[in-house]
Amino acid sequence: MRLLFMGFGVGVAVGAGGCYLYLSATKQPQAARVARGIAFDEEQHHALKFGAPETEIVRQYEGYIAAYDYRTRNPKWVLEHITRSSSSGDAKRDGTEFFPDPGVDPHFSAKLSDFRGSGYDRGHMAPAADHKSSQKAMNETFSLINISPQVGAGFNRDYWARFERYVKELTYAAADVYVITGPLWLPTQSQSQSQDEPHKGGSTGGKWTLVHDWIGKPPGLVAVPTHYYKVVVADPRGGGEPGNPAVAASSESESQLAKGAVAVGAFVMPNQPIDARNPLSAYVVPLEDLEQVAGTRFFPDLLEDPRRRAALDTAAAGWRQEGLMQLKPFERLSVKQALAALPAPTSGVTIETVDTKISNAAVQETVSAPATSSSSLLSSSRALPPPPPPPKTPPGTGVLHVCDVNACRMPRPDFYLPSGSSNNNNKPRQ
Amino acid sequence: MRLLFMGFGVGVAVGAGGCYLYLSATKQPQAARVARGIAFDEEQHHALKFGAPETEIVRQYEGYIAAYDYRTRNPKWVLEHITRSSSSGDAKRDGTEFFPDPGVDPHFSAKLSDFRGSGYDRGHMAPAADHKSSQKAMNETFSLINISPQVGAGFNRDYWARFERYVKELTYAAADVYVITGPLWLPTQSQSQSQDEPHKGGSTGGKWTLVHDWIGKPPGLVAVPTHYYKVVVADPRGGGEPGNPAVAASSESESQLAKGAVAVGAFVMPNQPIDARNPLSAYVVPLEDLEQVAGTRFFPDLLEDPRRRAALDTAAAGWRQEGLMQLKPFERLSVKQALAALPAPTSGVTIETVDTKISNAAVQETVSAPATSSSSLLSSSRALPPPPPPPKTPPGTGVLHVCDVNACRMPRPDFYLPSGSSNNNNKPRQ
Repeated sequence: MRLLFMGFGVGVAVGAGGCYLYLSATKQPQAARVARGIAFDEEQHHALKFGAPETEIVRQYEGYIAAYDYRTRNPKWVLEHITRSSSSGDAKRDGTEFFPDPGVDPHFSAKLSDFRGSGYDRGHMAPAADHKSSQKAMNETFSLINISPQVGAGFNRDYWARFERYVKELTYAAADVYVITGPLWLPTQSQSQSQDEPHKGGSTGGKWTLVHDWIGKPPGLVAVPTHYYKVVVADPRGGGEPGNPAVAASSESESQLAKGAVAVGAFVMPNQPIDARNPLSAYVVPLEDLEQVAGTRFFPDLLEDPRRRAALDTAAAGWRQEGLMQLKPFERLSVKQALAALPAPTSGVTIETVDTKISNAAVQETVSAPATSSSSLLSSSRALPPPPPPPKTPPGTGVLHVCDVNACRMPRPDFYLPSGSSNNNNKPRQ
Repeated sequence: MRLLFMGFGVGVAVGAGGCYLYLSATKQPQAARVARGIAFDEEQHHALKFGAPETEIVRQYEGYIAAYDYRTRNPKWVLEHITRSSSSGDAKRDGTEFFPDPGVDPHFSAKLSDFRGSGYDRGHMAPAADHKSSQKAMNETFSLINISPQVGAGFNRDYWARFERYVKELTYAAADVYVITGPLWLPTQSQSQSQDEPHKGGSTGGKWTLVHDWIGKPPGLVAVPTHYYKVVVADPRGGGEPGNPAVAASSESESQLAKGAVAVGAFVMPNQPIDARNPLSAYVVPLEDLEQVAGTRFFPDLLEDPRRRAALDTAAAGWRQEGLMQLKPFERLSVKQALAALPAPTSGVTIETVDTKISNAAVQETVSAPATSSSSLLSSSRALPPPPPPPKTPPGTGVLHVCDVNACRMPRPDFYLPSGSSNNNNKPRQ
């Protein structure tokens, strides 16, 4: 019997040893291939004798994961998971430094010199302020894998900064907030079909053309995006505090969040100065449209169900319509043109003819309140505005639109002013 | 002793079984992730709760492998391995049909309707004619994963077609030819620096701007590339016939090929009509520059050695210079502008001042010979032109430039005419 056990022991060792050798022989190359980007079975195809081209890389940091595109020298997407604790803490921007990502082939990385004198900010995709729980986490947001050339005044330092703050404050509504941020290059349509090229552009009118700048020196230029997107998921199921007064949730959306519904929203903004009075809801887009122009599916494991997607896109169309209605006709046209590649909702109210009185009043209320009380500086949502409209997301799918939670209300334009200071409005954030 | 063996046997079974269970548990998810594109360790990062965005897919066919970009709805790169037998055979184009790739998410695939009436050809990256050994292999080249919108007359049906033939004929010089083909989007530089934007464009002059069209219907548009590239590796080490008279190799390059050197070349052409008289060498580019604008390294396992790369790029600069010298000044400027994002060689002869007599004579010789003899129709290289110049690739690195093998000589403009027909010059190839 002792021999039986001895044999068994040796046998297990041999079996496991063989297994180890097998794993060593087969897994290492695969792991190496995986680390370099695209993964596929390199052994099998006769064309792969000298290796395969790799066009992007994915890097993981403490607070975020980023995919970097070697051709545009821009992030493709940056995925963050933030909580109230990860986005608060003692980490400071002072002393942080931008750095080329050590994991990105220097041939394909943007360089610090590309941005110098370019006229563009080094814009964070995952904002530094989302990662304050440790100095390491904040420092890591300054990797150029997380950076894209953004227009500074009026965008990165203003409207976009407020939007980032809006997203961060979702951690007051739901314990876990997941955000994907990235650049877009959206074409515009010429007004009328060219007469000498009757076949260009198909049957939909004028042809679509993309025009955008690049910075740096050839051949290694860095593309300047025409737009940026954020897709946001606010998940209360991890034990958030949906009743927090910071979020003026409607009782209906509050009850949905309490029942475990997840709030989702997609936004697209042009990389240009945006009027501080424009409502955030004017930049709400249907997830489906954004996915089409970004060329990816966001949060695939959450949003596979077509009923969920339909419910969200119905809500998004409603919110966008409401946002456009708040604008005067000329501004409305301008915002619509900026997002022309994402078709505006065609059903429902014809927004061109809707009275804009209500919305203008709402805008007044949001932006013109005197900016004196230091307790109201952090966020306009803390100034207890009138309750938001009832949710637009059809119930029963387990999701609701983030705007149903907080009525798309952004922080005040001066949200980042330290108490007492008042003339620091154009503080560069790059 | 029998017990020892019995125990050993059971032990091996347990060890191997445990190994199998371990593999089942760990390998399946990884394989699934690999199949969907980017691969990384999904288990470890807290941000990946709802999955990660995927922006491209790699598909393998009998004759080629293609990476497809979901945002531009274009191939990123298409890698072929062709031989004399794979590119000859009975497979016919007649009856072949373009089809959306079944492995590409329909949301991100180009559609047949995107091309209809667009004014652009459905241009193959891996040419159908490279895959004639089986009808299946040829049919597979009609997947839209291998297709990009190309200008038809003067490009896809003419200059580019001849270039494809040139590459295919490298199988007469080397047994194994590897080709990577793909689209580019290259910006152009404005002539002078804008005065009201002194910071744009850095110190190199005017700013760089990309302008290109899209076809189809929003939001799922298909980008029209501004340029296409091919990177070619001709490897004689598998038993090719370097002495084949079809290739007028110089004695030096022939001897290098015989010694096992590998011929490599990179080419970039604008997606527009190209004058049939332009020499191919005018479109030779340094590999390094192409890699910078394409955002990838080609054939990384062959071309890692910096001395090889330097040798190839020296040769490329020489060939390009020679090609540009063959052009009249205005045409030269036009070709240089078309490839402005890939800086022209600055060292060596100042090409602007070089006499163009010799080169014009050479061009005459190549394109103006009467196209009557059916035996000379297949390729100008079979018409036994004067011997090519000696290799430009510095020796000793095991590589030489493909133009050193065949002097960048393309087939005659009418190479595809069936013997006897003569008025079929604009036969559509789409």
